[in-house]
Amino acid sequence: MAARGPGPQSAEDRLIARYFRPLANHPGAFGLSDDAATLTPPAGSDLVLTTDAIVGGVHFFANDPADLVAKKALRVNLSDLAAKGAKPAGFLLTLALPKTIGDAWLKVFAGGLAADAEAYACPLLGGDTVRTPGPVTISITAFGTVPQGTMVRRGGAKVGDRVLVTGTIGDAALGLVQRRVAGAVRRWKLDRAQRDHLAERYLVPQPRIAIAEALRVFANAAMDVSDGLAGDLGKLCAASGVAAAIEIAQVPLSEAARKAVTAERSRIQTVLTGGDDYEIVCTVAPERLTPVRTAAAAAGVPVSEIGVVVAGKGAPKFLDHTGKPLLLKRPSFSHF
Amino acid sequence: MAARGPGPQSAEDRLIARYFRPLANHPGAFGLSDDAATLTPPAGSDLVLTTDAIVGGVHFFANDPADLVAKKALRVNLSDLAAKGAKPAGFLLTLALPKTIGDAWLKVFAGGLAADAEAYACPLLGGDTVRTPGPVTISITAFGTVPQGTMVRRGGAKVGDRVLVTGTIGDAALGLVQRRVAGAVRRWKLDRAQRDHLAERYLVPQPRIAIAEALRVFANAAMDVSDGLAGDLGKLCAASGVAAAIEIAQVPLSEAARKAVTAERSRIQTVLTGGDDYEIVCTVAPERLTPVRTAAAAAGVPVSEIGVVVAGKGAPKFLDHTGKPLLLKRPSFSHF
Repeated sequence: MAARGPGPQSAEDRLIARYFRPLANHPGAFGLSDDAATLTPPAGSDLVLTTDAIVGGVHFFANDPADLVAKKALRVNLSDLAAKGAKPAGFLLTLALPKTIGDAWLKVFAGGLAADAEAYACPLLGGDTVRTPGPVTISITAFGTVPQGTMVRRGGAKVGDRVLVTGTIGDAALGLVQRRVAGAVRRWKLDRAQRDHLAERYLVPQPRIAIAEALRVFANAAMDVSDGLAGDLGKLCAASGVAAAIEIAQVPLSEAARKAVTAERSRIQTVLTGGDDYEIVCTVAPERLTPVRTAAAAAGVPVSEIGVVVAGKGAPKFLDHTGKPLLLKRPSFSHF
Repeated sequence: MAARGPGPQSAEDRLIARYFRPLANHPGAFGLSDDAATLTPPAGSDLVLTTDAIVGGVHFFANDPADLVAKKALRVNLSDLAAKGAKPAGFLLTLALPKTIGDAWLKVFAGGLAADAEAYACPLLGGDTVRTPGPVTISITAFGTVPQGTMVRRGGAKVGDRVLVTGTIGDAALGLVQRRVAGAVRRWKLDRAQRDHLAERYLVPQPRIAIAEALRVFANAAMDVSDGLAGDLGKLCAASGVAAAIEIAQVPLSEAARKAVTAERSRIQTVLTGGDDYEIVCTVAPERLTPVRTAAAAAGVPVSEIGVVVAGKGAPKFLDHTGKPLLLKRPSFSHF
């Protein structure tokens, strides 16, 4: 992504200069006036790299507000950085735009992105804008730093570790159902604030950057929950060569989600396997539970203990109040 | 991009494990088994970051061979690294795939990518695969290293510098015309080898990685020529606050391009302003011309002196054999 200085400009140059240069306040971004950016992690640090794309009609709706689309695109990447214990350092943006997208949309999009780049201290370093005959596609690569060798891995869970999650689970997936399935809102008897809560949880993830440092210091394994708690915890267990036993009653639900599940019991499947939570699941040795809780409280991030890492292989078990494992119809969300 | 270990896998996990894990032989890629990768530039180095996307139906044809599509996607990024004087260190891949893309295409795609990752010592570090209702879209972020503070900038050209380009200019744009405009091949009287040359130059760029080190040491300014020589040199001049005078007769043409321009004189516009050259334009102080030529020869990269940096503002002038500037109808290629 690079705009010209003086002289005649292409439409692409103009849109970069107008909307994106203000976000590029990192010295290594060179004001988006070059073909590449530079980034130099502090001595003794590793750079943590993650990339996630969102596609119109797949990961967001075409009529979602452009500022929230921008925030979602960045935050799904910040969520990965947080789970890995990394501090944000910057990002690259690739924007594939259909001809139908005009300046009004781009202005709002850039505004949302600017607000988050500022809020999360994660400046725009560069990028690329391309035309597409398909839907708006936003691919972001985000960079973070950790002291060398300390990135929190998926594969570090140990038998006896406690399984913790941040925030509440299932809201975003229920928010999507509420948007797509006629009658859901009526059946669940949600009030306006509860409906808004679920809708917003789908639209804009809250990346748990505030707890990244505590995870790095105290967690044995962590990943963000983007494709459903059951499936993602399964991936963490598989990478660690362990299994897990989770008490469904301990999985933290918002008031809205609790009402939905109470009214329609099968929705517990949506909660445990639906995507877009962007919370963090991690495993922590029992003796480190207290420091993790203290650090999380100081960071203002709710954490809940939901189960324990056990020896074995295979998918984690989700146990009901009688201790019986729930059969999950489709453990992990996948567009494939 | 992360695949599971043992246990049930999603279709996405399977395709990553089957096709892309073999390319991820960098320790920081964690075998694509985590949510992020790590990269640690050597002490005293900057990481150079660049990202470029290619879109089916825009930057390549839907029926182009999948291995060449993969190579193009990586090479357009390597071309940027080369122009900035950087040594490749790795890349992230975001692949947006329509449902119509099957295993056969992916296998060939991954094969092409693997060959180039190996050839350019640029391993896959991670990525993301997403579904799209649009065309295949490939977004790559490539990383390189330079000694701290030595990335070759667009803005360093000085009055009196000589303007140099690598390779030959215009082949890819003529290759595209040849493919799109009926009768072009007949008019230009190209033999089979010449037609193949132009076609191939459009399909697979040759990133000038071999000359990156020489650029870093000797060039005052450089960028890769991806959107047409005239427009890209204009960007370099604008960033440097200078102008340039180029002798059209000195712009290096392949035999095929020379025949096309001889047969159809207006095609010089295509040559000077068409995209996809992926050569490098740079400016070098006169006293450094000899060491640059020596280094380029040692690297096996042809370089040609095409003009000089002059004081002033505005688009570079392209002078014909009488010294008269050619009026360029559309100086820079842009999809916008």
